[in-house]
Amino acid sequence: MADLDQQLNFLIEIDRLKSVYRQNLVKSDNNRNENSAEHSWHISMVANTLHQYAAEPVDISRVIHMLLIHDIVEIDAGDTFAFADAGQQEAQENKEIAAATRLFGLLPDQQFLATKNLWLEFEAAKTADARFAKAMDRLLPLLQNMANDGGSWVQHGVSKSQVIKRNQFLEGLSPELWDYALGQIQLAVENGWLTD
Amino acid sequence: MADLDQQLNFLIEIDRLKSVYRQNLVKSDNNRNENSAEHSWHISMVANTLHQYAAEPVDISRVIHMLLIHDIVEIDAGDTFAFADAGQQEAQENKEIAAATRLFGLLPDQQFLATKNLWLEFEAAKTADARFAKAMDRLLPLLQNMANDGGSWVQHGVSKSQVIKRNQFLEGLSPELWDYALGQIQLAVENGWLTD
Ligand SMILES: [Ca+2]
Repeated sequence: MADLDQQLNFLIEIDRLKSVYRQNLVKSDNNRNENSAEHSWHISMVANTLHQYAAEPVDISRVIHMLLIHDIVEIDAGDTFAFADAGQQEAQENKEIAAATRLFGLLPDQQFLATKNLWLEFEAAKTADARFAKAMDRLLPLLQNMANDGGSWVQHGVSKSQVIKRNQFLEGLSPELWDYALGQIQLAVENGWLTD
Repeated sequence: MADLDQQLNFLIEIDRLKSVYRQNLVKSDNNRNENSAEHSWHISMVANTLHQYAAEPVDISRVIHMLLIHDIVEIDAGDTFAFADAGQQEAQENKEIAAATRLFGLLPDQQFLATKNLWLEFEAAKTADARFAKAMDRLLPLLQNMANDGGSWVQHGVSKSQVIKRNQFLEGLSPELWDYALGQIQLAVENGWLTD
């Protein structure tokens, strides 16, 4: 198949990310569940707006590319709640690797490899770019829940220590954002939105 | 207000783009209307995947930044159907300029100016980056309608000449994509999805 046909097939296939729903709620739209396509847009905007706070400089165009593709695997693998147990999370990882191969594999060879490698880099969270991208992906639901009377935290009875653990990434990556997150988590406990 | 507080306010405010619905339909999600946040993600992926076809080289990270922000004004101004009449389109432009000032104005001064200028550049469609971004924004609904038995074209009785005019941008920008679009438009007429 010609490169262009492969690329267009991929672009139509990923339309399906708009039907993958997350636990997170959209306050502005009657608290319906958020889908992973609109989440991917929002998180790209978060990284773009806040990258000045990265302690170690990041290449923001790589970070955004990672965030645009980071959830595409959910088209095949579905979304797992952030606070799912270890067994569920491992099963999910295996499904996501197969999904990355099938979905990014719709692209021409070079683009397939570049995209899959970027996704693997995001998942491994070892490089500065990937760690910052992942930290943003974890910070955004905190911002959304704080603006929405606890949102999905309240729905699922999430605890303070779970949210701290999930955002711990930020500690070294961005002391300013980490301080902010800790203050918000404390406020959430005081408001009864997180269990202590 | 500290820069960070302004930035976080902005990031929460733009959550509302998820409740701005377009005429376009999401095939994979029971043909519900598409919202402008998920559209902004999809179009960023389109540009990222297809920028090799730009006849005049583009700075893809600027193009993506434009596409991530291009519809944020709709939070205040709403969406206008692509094939609305001239009077509606002019009223819309005025609303969008006010919206850009209010919404991007939530950001700290420097980010406000940079973002508003980037949005104005997109709207003016004079630079190579802006023209390519705009061409992608017009190509995507064509791809989606072709994959969905005519989708919003059929719903609104859109004609071949309207779609050609809207995609004409592509002609000089990307001969390969323009050829592809023309072929698809012809096919849409044959299928009865566009009036002749
Ligand atoms: Ca995610």
